[in-house]
Amino acid sequence: MSAEYLKSLTPEQRKKLCSEIRQLLVKTVTVNGGHLASNLGTVELTVAMHTVFDSPKDKFVFDVGHQSYTHKIITGRAGKMNTLRCEGGISGFPKAEESEHDAFIGGHSSISISAALGIAEAMRSDGDDHSVVAVIGDGALTGGEAYEGLNNAGKSRCNLIVVLNDNEMSISKNTGALALYLAQIRSTRKYYSTKNSVKNVLDKTPIIGKGIGKAVKGTKQLLKYAIYHSNLFEDLGFKYLGPIDGHNLDELTEALMVAKMMQRPCLVHIYTKKGKGYAPAEDNSGEYHGLPPKKDDDNNCKGECFTDAFGKALLSFADNDNSIYAVTAAMKYGTGLQHFYKAFPERFFDVGIAEQHAVTFSAGLASQGKLPVFAVYSSFLQRSYDQLIHDCAIEKRHVVLGIDRAGFVGEDGETHHGLFDVAMLTTVPGVTVYSPSDTAELSQCLEQALYKDKGVVAVRYPRGCELYRSGTKAYSDFRHVSNKSRKLIFTYGRISAYAYTVHGVDVLQAIKIFPIADEIIDICLAYDEIYAFEEGEREGGIAQKLCTALALAGYKGRFTITAVDGFVRHADVATQLHNAMLDADGMRKITGE
Amino acid sequence: MSAEYLKSLTPEQRKKLCSEIRQLLVKTVTVNGGHLASNLGTVELTVAMHTVFDSPKDKFVFDVGHQSYTHKIITGRAGKMNTLRCEGGISGFPKAEESEHDAFIGGHSSISISAALGIAEAMRSDGDDHSVVAVIGDGALTGGEAYEGLNNAGKSRCNLIVVLNDNEMSISKNTGALALYLAQIRSTRKYYSTKNSVKNVLDKTPIIGKGIGKAVKGTKQLLKYAIYHSNLFEDLGFKYLGPIDGHNLDELTEALMVAKMMQRPCLVHIYTKKGKGYAPAEDNSGEYHGLPPKKDDDNNCKGECFTDAFGKALLSFADNDNSIYAVTAAMKYGTGLQHFYKAFPERFFDVGIAEQHAVTFSAGLASQGKLPVFAVYSSFLQRSYDQLIHDCAIEKRHVVLGIDRAGFVGEDGETHHGLFDVAMLTTVPGVTVYSPSDTAELSQCLEQALYKDKGVVAVRYPRGCELYRSGTKAYSDFRHVSNKSRKLIFTYGRISAYAYTVHGVDVLQAIKIFPIADEIIDICLAYDEIYAFEEGEREGGIAQKLCTALALAGYKGRFTITAVDGFVRHADVATQLHNAMLDADGMRKITGE
Repeated sequence: MSAEYLKSLTPEQRKKLCSEIRQLLVKTVTVNGGHLASNLGTVELTVAMHTVFDSPKDKFVFDVGHQSYTHKIITGRAGKMNTLRCEGGISGFPKAEESEHDAFIGGHSSISISAALGIAEAMRSDGDDHSVVAVIGDGALTGGEAYEGLNNAGKSRCNLIVVLNDNEMSISKNTGALALYLAQIRSTRKYYSTKNSVKNVLDKTPIIGKGIGKAVKGTKQLLKYAIYHSNLFEDLGFKYLGPIDGHNLDELTEALMVAKMMQRPCLVHIYTKKGKGYAPAEDNSGEYHGLPPKKDDDNNCKGECFTDAFGKALLSFADNDNSIYAVTAAMKYGTGLQHFYKAFPERFFDVGIAEQHAVTFSAGLASQGKLPVFAVYSSFLQRSYDQLIHDCAIEKRHVVLGIDRAGFVGEDGETHHGLFDVAMLTTVPGVTVYSPSDTAELSQCLEQALYKDKGVVAVRYPRGCELYRSGTKAYSDFRHVSNKSRKLIFTYGRISAYAYTVHGVDVLQAIKIFPIADEIIDICLAYDEIYAFEEGEREGGIAQKLCTALALAGYKGRFTITAVDGFVRHADVATQLHNAMLDADGMRKITGE
Repeated sequence: MSAEYLKSLTPEQRKKLCSEIRQLLVKTVTVNGGHLASNLGTVELTVAMHTVFDSPKDKFVFDVGHQSYTHKIITGRAGKMNTLRCEGGISGFPKAEESEHDAFIGGHSSISISAALGIAEAMRSDGDDHSVVAVIGDGALTGGEAYEGLNNAGKSRCNLIVVLNDNEMSISKNTGALALYLAQIRSTRKYYSTKNSVKNVLDKTPIIGKGIGKAVKGTKQLLKYAIYHSNLFEDLGFKYLGPIDGHNLDELTEALMVAKMMQRPCLVHIYTKKGKGYAPAEDNSGEYHGLPPKKDDDNNCKGECFTDAFGKALLSFADNDNSIYAVTAAMKYGTGLQHFYKAFPERFFDVGIAEQHAVTFSAGLASQGKLPVFAVYSSFLQRSYDQLIHDCAIEKRHVVLGIDRAGFVGEDGETHHGLFDVAMLTTVPGVTVYSPSDTAELSQCLEQALYKDKGVVAVRYPRGCELYRSGTKAYSDFRHVSNKSRKLIFTYGRISAYAYTVHGVDVLQAIKIFPIADEIIDICLAYDEIYAFEEGEREGGIAQKLCTALALAGYKGRFTITAVDGFVRHADVATQLHNAMLDADGMRKITGE
């Protein structure tokens, strides 16, 4: 399969192709795991894009990027779909190193317009008049950077097309004033009939001109203007085309052709159905947003899932404390907050994919004596670094972070691991960080965070299920298991389970990992050899800090650090831990036991 | 002076008061330094706010916050204005610990709506029907978080008023589609006459209702709707009032009263003149944006200014290399890019206060083989942490950062120091960080960053002028001056100048500070005592990393770290360095020489 082949087809053949692609998507994702609903929703769009444009000369930038499977199929990767998200296989997201057709990385939300504009400005200055197409969902449009991108792109002179893929939701139901606004466009305005619209646009609008605004004279034209053309996107300088049925291949193709001819920033608003063409996914696109691989540990694990445990623990505290508020950035289910939402909808805020706002908003709540808990994936919290420092830490606002997906996440790969949060958070003055190793500890840590600590307090825990039960009865900052060895493993988080299986060494498991407790230093000073294992980035990690603290305290023994260096590709979590020497095997090898 | 007193005055007396406040502002700022133009522009607004609302029961949140001087004067701090921005005196920004009237910290841009919404939701749930007023400039509105805030606030049921203070610029001339849009509102729509508007609003709009949209029937009403009411802010769910002359106290007061009565999210759009009432500042508000204290070193320093040196060096490289692009987030003058802009306007991008976009946009340029240089203040780069990791580092995009205001910044205090960039950047995989100690080194480091390194490369340098000239001829990763002492000072950046004045110790000055060069480790291993001095945060800093590297290499000598812990209040830079033991005095004391 190639885009050339696709272009050679008749419209009817292309429609048939869409069905075949859908079958391949369902077949692949139900085995390998991955994002199903979003890909089923964008089959026609992607086929239309490759019909109208000429990748890689024209550039496609997929926001979030997990809806790029059809694009991968069309650009020579159909035969590799069985390796999707597997170790050594193709990625579930666009990656420039994988194909020249993947113009820009996608994984985090709301960046596509900014990236596309950078690409487009570079092309414009080189006299290259090909188009750059950014595909962004209505969910991603709730993120501030998307607006920064629109604000800058709207005044540019680039051949930039933003396709707004409006399916009325990000992962869970979309929220915010913008969502209401898009719903209003969809419901109160006549659908844009491209046959007429092409005519209208070409008849009445100078291709490169100052827009329709200045031409409006008299009531009749004004009426048309108000109905069809005056909207938020035109206010921001874009030519607006839409709304267009995103499953009607003919209309889509024609609209994209019009957009291409415009040679100016243009927003094509299409509405699609997540899960389109696969009944189970259409009926419950939330559940079919991201599927685990069939073989995934999640399906077979015996322990409790950290996310569920967090959601339940928070609910139980909130039952007795009406100052607790829960905040999520479009991850109600992903963070286990659905229980909280059902019980206390008035104290629950889904702010959209807006992590910056989430933290500042939480600080605002805290300033009035409330106890906000922002539940967020580690990787996405990176968006809030400045807000944690500026809006929370300076005034010592008590904001609790429930950090899910800390550590390796497996098949989603580089863009989604939670490997940076410890290094990032420990630079925030006054912060306290907990890293429980099982769900019982998680609940205890959350209680500490809510009621014992002040300022910014984070409780971080991994994706999936606990590997063991520590059997610890009451909360303690650390757990020290001594077999009178001269060797000590220092570690924290879920991989503690592996440490306890290594014979011949003592184990010191931190639970409150930062600030490092004085007792931890004292215990370490008594050992000849210390082996630190950290499921997180080496630079700025706890192991470096412990090593420094020991050196400053005069420790003369041996110290080694096993941690993560840089980015780690997609594979399953067990493989990622193994390759990083962070499982039982690795610990035995490193310690020589 | 108090708000009660102000409320007791007649309208005419309040106008007179505005003049007196202006005199005090000019008198204060021309001596102490600080932000003059923005404060002169918001005198009437602040007086009107304190006339209509009842602080601290009603809450005021000032975005950026450097326009809060009038608020400080009215809320009991007039007598302390002579201590503004001085050590132990009042801050140049709102600070909750300073006064109950400062509802939320302000320093960084675009956070006010999010913070105000958090406060408002907390008050609403407590049954408190007082108002929360966020004051935000049109410049700050170019930041994505402001839009995240609007998107969430627009659908809320809070008594939240956003005052958009539209002076057509942030620090330099405002840019972006939004700026054009606001200009269009100002120029093509009739100014909102509050006398009529109050009547209109009360007659036709239910105070708490679904807005005007549903009531629109027929052409005549539609016409009105299109002219007066349909705009970006109403699209986002706000009731819009404006535009209003922000220097007309009567109109302002009336508009704020209407907004208060609405009891729903409301945007009051006022237009003001930066520097109003003080001719020099009106004529050149850019120059009068931030003034240095009269006694400031900047005015007396003999060395070259780092900012100027950066601007000139970049220009000289760009003269010979048309792949170089310059990007700024509303800081053309602050970062010394005005020279570049004049010479190469086509390769210069001022993206507004949008640091996230700036980095992703730069990565987009880099993906097409361009060589983008994003010049930014250290403190504001904190907004781009995720973009540096996700959009740049994963795909190894070569993006150069010119990081100004690294280290202490003096009188602006906690919110503006550049103390976190080293700890933050060194967690970004593949990053290279330079910290020159003088302007000659700066130019050399920039050349390395442009032509020797790959990936994300940062060159960081302080505010103000160089303290000395190292006299180094050619670029080197470090400079080692040995007097055959057993003691070594390790340091980097401008405070290296102090290290070289300490007799009896050797000095190792890093220039490429990360990754730490192997030679630096080797040199250190030969010393008995190492004293690290770092003008940056201790946690995650270079000193911790060097200590760790030495420990892992088997170093058994003494190691001490002198660095910055947490937040540092406003004072002059010399005082801040002295208090942190980072000047020559401190180095002598710590090393015992």
